[in-house]
Amino acid sequence: MNKNSSNTMALAPNTSSKRETVCIFGTGDFGRALGHKMIQSGYHVVYGSRSTQISNLIPKDAEVLSHAEAAQKATIIIIAIQRQHYNILTPLAEILHGKVLVDISNNLKLNQYPESNAEYLAQLLPGTKVVKAFNTVSAWALQSGTLDASRQVFVCGDDVEAKQMVMNIVRALGLTPLDKGSLLAAQEIENYPLQLFPMWKFPMVLSLGLTVFFFFYCLALDVIYAYIYENNNFSFFIVYTIPNHVCPVMALILLALVYLPGIFAAIIQLYRGTKYRRFPDWLDKWMLCRKQLGLIALAFASLHAVFTLGSPTRTFIRWRTGTGIVSQALNNRTEPLNITNAWLSDSYLALGILGFFLFVLLGITSLPSVSNNVNWREFRFVQSKLGYLTLIFCTAHTLVYGGKWFLNPAAYKWYLPDIYMLSLVVPCAVLVVKFVLIFPCIDKHLTKIRQGWERNPKYSE
Amino acid sequence: MNKNSSNTMALAPNTSSKRETVCIFGTGDFGRALGHKMIQSGYHVVYGSRSTQISNLIPKDAEVLSHAEAAQKATIIIIAIQRQHYNILTPLAEILHGKVLVDISNNLKLNQYPESNAEYLAQLLPGTKVVKAFNTVSAWALQSGTLDASRQVFVCGDDVEAKQMVMNIVRALGLTPLDKGSLLAAQEIENYPLQLFPMWKFPMVLSLGLTVFFFFYCLALDVIYAYIYENNNFSFFIVYTIPNHVCPVMALILLALVYLPGIFAAIIQLYRGTKYRRFPDWLDKWMLCRKQLGLIALAFASLHAVFTLGSPTRTFIRWRTGTGIVSQALNNRTEPLNITNAWLSDSYLALGILGFFLFVLLGITSLPSVSNNVNWREFRFVQSKLGYLTLIFCTAHTLVYGGKWFLNPAAYKWYLPDIYMLSLVVPCAVLVVKFVLIFPCIDKHLTKIRQGWERNPKYSE
Amino acid sequence: MNKNSSNTMALAPNTSSKRETVCIFGTGDFGRALGHKMIQSGYHVVYGSRSTQISNLIPKDAEVLSHAEAAQKATIIIIAIQRQHYNILTPLAEILHGKVLVDISNNLKLNQYPESNAEYLAQLLPGTKVVKAFNTVSAWALQSGTLDASRQVFVCGDDVEAKQMVMNIVRALGLTPLDKGSLLAAQEIENYPLQLFPMWKFPMVLSLGLTVFFFFYCLALDVIYAYIYENNNFSFFIVYTIPNHVCPVMALILLALVYLPGIFAAIIQLYRGTKYRRFPDWLDKWMLCRKQLGLIALAFASLHAVFTLGSPTRTFIRWRTGTGIVSQALNNRTEPLNITNAWLSDSYLALGILGFFLFVLLGITSLPSVSNNVNWREFRFVQSKLGYLTLIFCTAHTLVYGGKWFLNPAAYKWYLPDIYMLSLVVPCAVLVVKFVLIFPCIDKHLTKIRQGWERNPKYSE
Repeated sequence: MNKNSSNTMALAPNTSSKRETVCIFGTGDFGRALGHKMIQSGYHVVYGSRSTQISNLIPKDAEVLSHAEAAQKATIIIIAIQRQHYNILTPLAEILHGKVLVDISNNLKLNQYPESNAEYLAQLLPGTKVVKAFNTVSAWALQSGTLDASRQVFVCGDDVEAKQMVMNIVRALGLTPLDKGSLLAAQEIENYPLQLFPMWKFPMVLSLGLTVFFFFYCLALDVIYAYIYENNNFSFFIVYTIPNHVCPVMALILLALVYLPGIFAAIIQLYRGTKYRRFPDWLDKWMLCRKQLGLIALAFASLHAVFTLGSPTRTFIRWRTGTGIVSQALNNRTEPLNITNAWLSDSYLALGILGFFLFVLLGITSLPSVSNNVNWREFRFVQSKLGYLTLIFCTAHTLVYGGKWFLNPAAYKWYLPDIYMLSLVVPCAVLVVKFVLIFPCIDKHLTKIRQGWERNPKYSE
Repeated sequence: MNKNSSNTMALAPNTSSKRETVCIFGTGDFGRALGHKMIQSGYHVVYGSRSTQISNLIPKDAEVLSHAEAAQKATIIIIAIQRQHYNILTPLAEILHGKVLVDISNNLKLNQYPESNAEYLAQLLPGTKVVKAFNTVSAWALQSGTLDASRQVFVCGDDVEAKQMVMNIVRALGLTPLDKGSLLAAQEIENYPLQLFPMWKFPMVLSLGLTVFFFFYCLALDVIYAYIYENNNFSFFIVYTIPNHVCPVMALILLALVYLPGIFAAIIQLYRGTKYRRFPDWLDKWMLCRKQLGLIALAFASLHAVFTLGSPTRTFIRWRTGTGIVSQALNNRTEPLNITNAWLSDSYLALGILGFFLFVLLGITSLPSVSNNVNWREFRFVQSKLGYLTLIFCTAHTLVYGGKWFLNPAAYKWYLPDIYMLSLVVPCAVLVVKFVLIFPCIDKHLTKIRQGWERNPKYSE
Repeated sequence: MNKNSSNTMALAPNTSSKRETVCIFGTGDFGRALGHKMIQSGYHVVYGSRSTQISNLIPKDAEVLSHAEAAQKATIIIIAIQRQHYNILTPLAEILHGKVLVDISNNLKLNQYPESNAEYLAQLLPGTKVVKAFNTVSAWALQSGTLDASRQVFVCGDDVEAKQMVMNIVRALGLTPLDKGSLLAAQEIENYPLQLFPMWKFPMVLSLGLTVFFFFYCLALDVIYAYIYENNNFSFFIVYTIPNHVCPVMALILLALVYLPGIFAAIIQLYRGTKYRRFPDWLDKWMLCRKQLGLIALAFASLHAVFTLGSPTRTFIRWRTGTGIVSQALNNRTEPLNITNAWLSDSYLALGILGFFLFVLLGITSLPSVSNNVNWREFRFVQSKLGYLTLIFCTAHTLVYGGKWFLNPAAYKWYLPDIYMLSLVVPCAVLVVKFVLIFPCIDKHLTKIRQGWERNPKYSE
């Protein structure tokens, strides 16, 4: 920088602190919010509008001009108008030629149009450099400055320099730009803010279905059976006892379902003798939602833990305890401690506590900020080794809890097993097959395949 | 790059690996720590000091020169001296002309001087490009490399290129620069490290005040009343029973206070028929501290959960249970199970557990790393839908818990209601008004207003 | 940009959307995965391979050429071959001259070779610009797109521009580059993915050792002593009672060990009269693993909490309660409430709950995403003030719990103290010394030293 220019700067500090001029087409809600924020960050903002009379809602330091005049003042033009009105831009093609157009539009539903709004804009105005950005940010968040939800702004575009200019603006506004590649990504970016936990849909539906099934299974065995055959009114089991039966069963089954696809994948790779053929689609999808399955399992396990810890304060349990003690007292005897029962009760409690503890650890390491701070080897160690240990503890907890009832015919009401027996099927299967898979001969073979060896190279697609 | 230059590079790899030269004025604690870190990152560091004799505390690879000599060696000069001594720089104005000066100073208290240190520096030396940076990093953290606290370095300045140069240095040191705009932001940046949880102040004071009030209210009703009228010494209630009464009350009230401002905002918008007029200041401030209120409510709810789960191990509860059972045994009878009580007890426990579970979910989604990974729609879904569900569960938990005592005159000691009745006022009001607001006719009107419609456009300021 | 160039762009949008060409040497697993991802992100990829026949595993849009031909097509060449085969590159020295070589290799164990792979490559081909990158990303994660583990890519290199080019590619792939400085950092970067929680090793070993010691100590006093002298079979204590004795002891000792090094550091600084001499190595290391010690202590505290809350559901506890009540009933009397015992029991429970609550708060603030959002002063406040408060609460909890047994000779089986007495030694020592250190006269002196004052300046090294 030569002396002259810095002299000028010293003389006119306010001008030099201004960043470049940005033009915004459209004076709607989002256009105003964005303009306001940009002015705060030192940009000079010019609005392009059909009616150039200055509305009192527009930020004070902004100019309002006609579209054509406004466009000539800036290199970057933010298109804050809706897709249906993009055609009003076609007469301006000559003026917009070579400019950077920022498409910030969103749709009302997923894949509303065959092509994304940004691509449509690029087709309408072929001489411009279209960049998709800002559509994931809400006007309210921009205005209030409380960006509790994502600060990430996805940016995509075909022109690298234009994209860089837009990303600089994003950074200047205190947001984090994330380059998603060429304009082909616009469809995905436009769909993003419309999504509602897409990865959670299948796990949620699955667990809801299973929960309903097990709830009515328990209702039949614990309440209706007792009412019909034993004439006991245990209707209040619906609110506490049955949920506390269903939660651990769900937790165990869902946890096992997290590790089942890995087992399937290993068997398929062993059978095919190569890792280069794609897994079936259902397996791919299953593997991608393992984290969600695991977290739902953790939610059920937590509910089970709190339900169990809270049970001594229940009226029913206090009544049952009291009645037992009173009948002992009336019979004039104290029962000696049954050491076996003490061992069993302490063991399943301790196994459950340890299993739950490891489960919570797994949950903590799946927090984004924690998993970003471990390397790949550590992440694998936690999610695989610790995960299997959790599964072993939880399965053992269930086995010890119900051990003595397996061979007891009284446990089979209506010839149906209790649900904790059903819950053991999947975890035990997973653990047995996993145990076979880590036999040295099989494990060695599998490792070889995973390092790229192929039994029959012609197989590869 | 031509062959010559890369040949030179090959011949002198050590030189080429050096980044540019940076000058540091001042050899105090922070200056030394920063220099040390910069040398580690490959910069060449020159210290400018009044006494040029090489102190043994200064990093070995750094040069120490007079201020004038040091300044000539670098484009970037870090001013690691205190504001009071900035005047020693005025004689160097000629040499510093056009250089990038990095102001890293901090004050001892908020808004200590009328203008920020960085702006003061820019006024003293008008020909320089002043950039504010590094003031949020501690010398100790730089030295030890344990940057557990924030890696964020706020940067601001009027010259974009100068700011870019400083941000590159910040990145090279393994820190994350965050561009805060022009030098006007310096005041805010200088205040930042002096703040102690500013957003938490009002919620903390409010909850402390309410807690103290409810504590003494309970003390009067539960301990003093029992002592005076029933001659029972329940003084030990102070440490366990009363806290476990106050915590749930606080949790419920604070949770309701999170949703109250949203209700007020909706009513104000409906009344005014526009969303374009600013809310009153108190409402704006209240809305900005909702997250903090919610987290404090969660803390109280957690304490209540643990206090309740722990109560069966209390001496008092064990004594009360034992006495009850012994008196039954001595009277030679077993009481039958009261089904209604069993229903009530199981219901309020289950409602409380589910409410607490949803509350913890809300807390987890407000962790920064989780909320950064959801889009705006998902964040709103969790914080609004799930939040109201939590409030409904927790209110129902309280209602069912105390249901049978509302009409019981014995519950009104000294004609005062128990605190759980007081705690229901705000949540019930919020839920009732919210229920009215989601009536289709009102909801439709409100949605129209929130999309920009105005009943009376002249109203807008 | 002039009109011509933008016209060309308009005519050939597909070409303009392509980023530059990148060459990959080696068609192994990682080379293919990286190429695939790069093509998705809009790069043109050319593989350099010994056999140029197109394998069907290579991404479809990539070319496969000989090493020499491929290298000529791109400025950036990714070396996806193993260190042992780097010598095949030496004949290409002429062609590679001035190119950017990206070393992505990993080793099988820590510090396998005297120099890092990247430095070795730079020595082999002195005219090239070697950049280390991508070694921390797994091929599987790249392919599947599920980057749950770290998105961070460490980058280092001697040439700033070459590094910038590679960092741009990293960003374009949706990953986060982190500049680690010059090529000297390559050794550290190559070691990173091989590490398995290096900071956790010492704390884990220490706590494992202490746990084993205390377990057998308890086993001797609680089980073996009772079996020999009282002829009671309490073998089942092994699974529940003893773990619940060991956990709180471990939690308290480890928490005290978090604050002990700070005490040592203060004493050393007071004794030396300067802060400028390095602490002994063991103290430095200890200070760096305080966070890990604290988190392990929190894990033990959590286990203790759940074990305690779960104990009323144990068969043994239910039997003991029942037996006590039955014997009261058989003796025809109800014991009055012992107010002192009620006070003691409620106090230690409440102290424990509050201590645990603060401990969990400390744990939450040590989550990376939370600690990134607080400034240095807030972090210090939480970790120091809140930490000491936690230690005070937990120590008081233990003191009140065991208070009445200290002077009771029956508590000393085999003349050995119970482990909770042992657990109090370190925390009490820490608290007493800390109490002395905050005496105004000493604290003032210490603050002076920490601000840079030296009693005896010649001491400084």
